[in-house]
Amino acid sequence: MPNDKGGLTPRAEDFPRWYQEVVAGAEMAENGPVRGTMVIRPWGFGIWELLVDEMDRRIKEAGAEGAYFPLFIPESFLRLEASHVEGFSPELAVVTHGGGKLLEEPIVVRPTSETVVNYFFAKWIQSHRDLPLLINQWSNVVRWEMRTRLFLRTTEFLWQEGHTAHATEAEATAYALRILRDVYLDTAEKVAGIPALLGHKTERERFAGAVRTWASEAMMGDGKALQLGTSHELGQNFAKAFDISFSDESGAQQYVFQTSWGASTRLIGGLIMVHGDDFGLRLPPALAPSQVVVMVVKADEATERAAAAIAEDLKASGLRVRIDDRTDTGFGRRAIDWERKGVPVRVEVGPRDLAEDKAVVVVRLDRTKSPVALRGLTAEVLAVLGRTTETLYTEAKAFRDANTTTVDTLDEAIEAGTSGFAVLPWPAVGEAGEDRLAEAGITVRCLQRPDGSLAEGDEEPLVAVVGKSY
Amino acid sequence: MPNDKGGLTPRAEDFPRWYQEVVAGAEMAENGPVRGTMVIRPWGFGIWELLVDEMDRRIKEAGAEGAYFPLFIPESFLRLEASHVEGFSPELAVVTHGGGKLLEEPIVVRPTSETVVNYFFAKWIQSHRDLPLLINQWSNVVRWEMRTRLFLRTTEFLWQEGHTAHATEAEATAYALRILRDVYLDTAEKVAGIPALLGHKTERERFAGAVRTWASEAMMGDGKALQLGTSHELGQNFAKAFDISFSDESGAQQYVFQTSWGASTRLIGGLIMVHGDDFGLRLPPALAPSQVVVMVVKADEATERAAAAIAEDLKASGLRVRIDDRTDTGFGRRAIDWERKGVPVRVEVGPRDLAEDKAVVVVRLDRTKSPVALRGLTAEVLAVLGRTTETLYTEAKAFRDANTTTVDTLDEAIEAGTSGFAVLPWPAVGEAGEDRLAEAGITVRCLQRPDGSLAEGDEEPLVAVVGKSY
Repeated sequence: MPNDKGGLTPRAEDFPRWYQEVVAGAEMAENGPVRGTMVIRPWGFGIWELLVDEMDRRIKEAGAEGAYFPLFIPESFLRLEASHVEGFSPELAVVTHGGGKLLEEPIVVRPTSETVVNYFFAKWIQSHRDLPLLINQWSNVVRWEMRTRLFLRTTEFLWQEGHTAHATEAEATAYALRILRDVYLDTAEKVAGIPALLGHKTERERFAGAVRTWASEAMMGDGKALQLGTSHELGQNFAKAFDISFSDESGAQQYVFQTSWGASTRLIGGLIMVHGDDFGLRLPPALAPSQVVVMVVKADEATERAAAAIAEDLKASGLRVRIDDRTDTGFGRRAIDWERKGVPVRVEVGPRDLAEDKAVVVVRLDRTKSPVALRGLTAEVLAVLGRTTETLYTEAKAFRDANTTTVDTLDEAIEAGTSGFAVLPWPAVGEAGEDRLAEAGITVRCLQRPDGSLAEGDEEPLVAVVGKSY
Repeated sequence: MPNDKGGLTPRAEDFPRWYQEVVAGAEMAENGPVRGTMVIRPWGFGIWELLVDEMDRRIKEAGAEGAYFPLFIPESFLRLEASHVEGFSPELAVVTHGGGKLLEEPIVVRPTSETVVNYFFAKWIQSHRDLPLLINQWSNVVRWEMRTRLFLRTTEFLWQEGHTAHATEAEATAYALRILRDVYLDTAEKVAGIPALLGHKTERERFAGAVRTWASEAMMGDGKALQLGTSHELGQNFAKAFDISFSDESGAQQYVFQTSWGASTRLIGGLIMVHGDDFGLRLPPALAPSQVVVMVVKADEATERAAAAIAEDLKASGLRVRIDDRTDTGFGRRAIDWERKGVPVRVEVGPRDLAEDKAVVVVRLDRTKSPVALRGLTAEVLAVLGRTTETLYTEAKAFRDANTTTVDTLDEAIEAGTSGFAVLPWPAVGEAGEDRLAEAGITVRCLQRPDGSLAEGDEEPLVAVVGKSY
C-alpha cells in the first residue's frame, strides 16, 4: 500500500508492485473474499461504465442487438464441441447443489456462452431471412484461474461477448474484422488513447473452437503485451455441433458460418499500465468519471461560492465535474488523491488567486500548474482536455516503437522479446519455434503483413510479433 | 404458442396463458436449458436496457455510485446475520468444485449481496467523513425457485441492488424513502405508465434482515398485485453483524444505519400484465426499443424511397425508428408482429396512399388507423407518442380503482381480495388475520394511511391493502 504522502513505488523499480499500488491507491478495486474474485469500487466501476457506453454504441452501430443468456449451463452442453470442452474444462466452476438438494446434472457457471447461445441459434435460425443474426451480451463469466491479478486475470470478470451467424464464410470474416476494427481498435485508440496492433493468432494461441482468432494487442509500460479484444471466426464448428442450419434462397439446407468476439474489464488494467506514471493513473477524458475536479483550497464562503460558479460553468460545457470541498482534510493529501485517480484536470480555487481573478489549473498529463484568469478558465480546461487523449496516444506509441525490435532469428527474438516486442519473419518461428519461445515465457502475439497491417486472407509473407504477455 | 395469424388467447379467458403467449409471440424471452433460467431475447432486452438507463439516471441523481461485488460469496458469510440466512438458505445455489477440484469451503452464488457488500463497508468506513456511503450494483442474482415464470420469477434474474450506510437513523429512513419515491415510483409512473401504491410491509412480509421494508405495488390486468421495487431500512442489524462502525465528530465509535433496495427484470412482466391487451404488448414510448415502425407495404422503388424519407424525418426528431421492408413476408403477418411487440406507432407506406401524399398512421393504444398527409406526419406521430404514457397510466389507474374495494372485515377482504385489492383497517387484520388471508392465497401488500398516502413513522391509524400476488 502506498503511504499517505502518496509515495507509490516507482514504476521502473517494481512494475507489478506499482500496478497494485495504483489499483489500491486510486480506490479502483480490491480482492474479493473468494480467492481470485474482485470488488470493483466506484472509481474503477465509473471507468468501466464509460467504457461500456463507448463500446456498446459501436457494437450497436455494427448492427448487433443486446440479449441475455443464462449464467448456468448444463455440463453436457460443454462437451458438444470437442476443442471447446478441452479448452475450458480445467477452468470451470461447478454448481452441484440447488435449493438444498443435490442436482441430477451438475451445472457449469458460464466461462463463455458459445454453447448456450448456439443451442438457441439452432432454434431461431430456419431461413436465410433470419440471417445475419447479430447478438451481444454484457455479463459476468467465471474461469477458475490459479494466478490472479486485479483487472488482468480474475476468476470472475465482466465482459461483452458477441455471437453472430451468417450465410457465407466471406460475410462472417468481414464481420469479425469489422468488430476488430470498428469496435476494438477504435475504442482503444480514439477513446482510451492506446495504440493497438491488429493481426491474427497462431494455431497454438487460437480460441478453443475457432478456425481463426483476430486480436488487438497493446504494449504495456513494462514492455509486455496485453490482449485488448479478440474476434473469432468459428467457421462451421459450432454450427455442426449444434445443428444450426438454414434453407437458402434455393431451398437447400446449409450450415451457418459464425463469429464470436469479446473484450473485458482487463481493458482497465491496460489503461493503468499504458498511461500510468509514478504518481498514479492518467485517464483519457472520455473514460474519466470526473474530468475536472474543482478544489476548494480554504473553507471560506467567497472561495466556496467561486468554486461552485466555476464548476457550473464547466458543467454547462458538458463536462463531468466534481467539487472537492473537504477542507477538513489537508489540501496536499486531497491533491495527491485526485492525481492518483488520474483526473485529467484539477482547478485549485483559493483566496489569494481569487483576489487576482484567477485560479490554478493543474494538468495531470505532465503535472504542470498555471494560474489562469477566471474569464478564460473554461476555454483553457477544454483545450487541455482536447489534447489529452492524443498526447497519451503519442507517448504510448513512441514507447512501443522504442521497445519494438525487428530481428531475423529466433535467438534474437527471445532476447528482444523479453523486455519488449520483437518482429521477425513467421517462417523463422513456426510451430517448433513457438515451443522454444514458450520456454522463455514468450508467445507470438499476432501475425501481420511485414508493413504491420492486418493480413485478411491466407497470404504470405507474414511476420510474427512476439513478446511476453499478461 | 400463438398461431401465425396472431390469435392470442384472450386475456379474459386465460390470463396466465395469454401472458406466456405474449412473452413468446413478442420474442421477449424463453426458458433456458437449466430449469428456471431465462434467455432474454433482443426485444425483451431492449426494453430492459431502456429501463436500466432510466433507473440508473435517477439512482445517480440520488447520489449513489456504481460498483460491482463478486458473484461468489463464502457460505460462512451468509450465516453472520441470523434472519438473513434463515430467509435465503432454502434458495441457494452452491458451487462445490472449481478448476477440477473439490473446494475447501462451499461457495454460494449470490441471492443478494448484503453480506459481501457489508464485509467491505466495514473496511471502507472509519470516520463520519466516509458517510453517507451510497452504492448501487447492476447484476445477476440466483434464487433457487420451485415454480418459475418468465420475468416474474426465475432462478437467475437481473436487477439493481443499492446498499447505503448513514450516520443516523433519520438519514437512513429519509434515503430509503427517497429511493422509493424518486426512483421506483417515478420510474413506474412517469416512464412505464404504471400507477403504483406506496407503503410499508407487515413484519411477516419484511425482507430477511430488515427492520422495515417499503414497497411500491401495482395491480396487474387480472387484479393481482406485483411488487415493483422494495426499499429496506436495515437499522443496525448488518452493522452489528459485520462490525460497521465509525468515529463521530466527537470521536465516539458508532454503528452505522443502513438501507438496501432493489428492482428487477420482473418489472418487464409488470409492464406486460398492466398494459397488454388481446393483441399483445402495448409499450410506453420511453421503453419501446422501436417507437415507430415504418412499414413498406409493397416492394417498389418509389415506396421504399418514401419510407426511407419518412424514417429520416422521424429520426431527426430524436425518435427510435425502424424500417420494415421485409416485403417477402406477408403484410398482415408483419403488422401483427409489430402489434404483438407493442410498438406505439406504425406508419404504413404504400403506393396508393403515396399517390395522395399520405401514409397511414396506426396507433397501438387503441388500434385506430388514419391516413395522414406526409407534410404533417412527424407532428402527428409526436402527438400520439406524447399522449401514450399518460393514456396507459389513466387506463391502468381506472382499472385499479374499479377493482379496489374498501371493506371492514376480514371475510369481506378475502372475498374482494381474490379478484382485486381490498382495503381495510389494519387492526381488523393483525398477525392472526394474516394467517387467515394466507389460507386464501392472499397477503397484505402494504400498509398505508387511510387516505392512501405513505405513513412515514409508527403512526396510526393504518389501513392494509390486501390481494393475491405474483
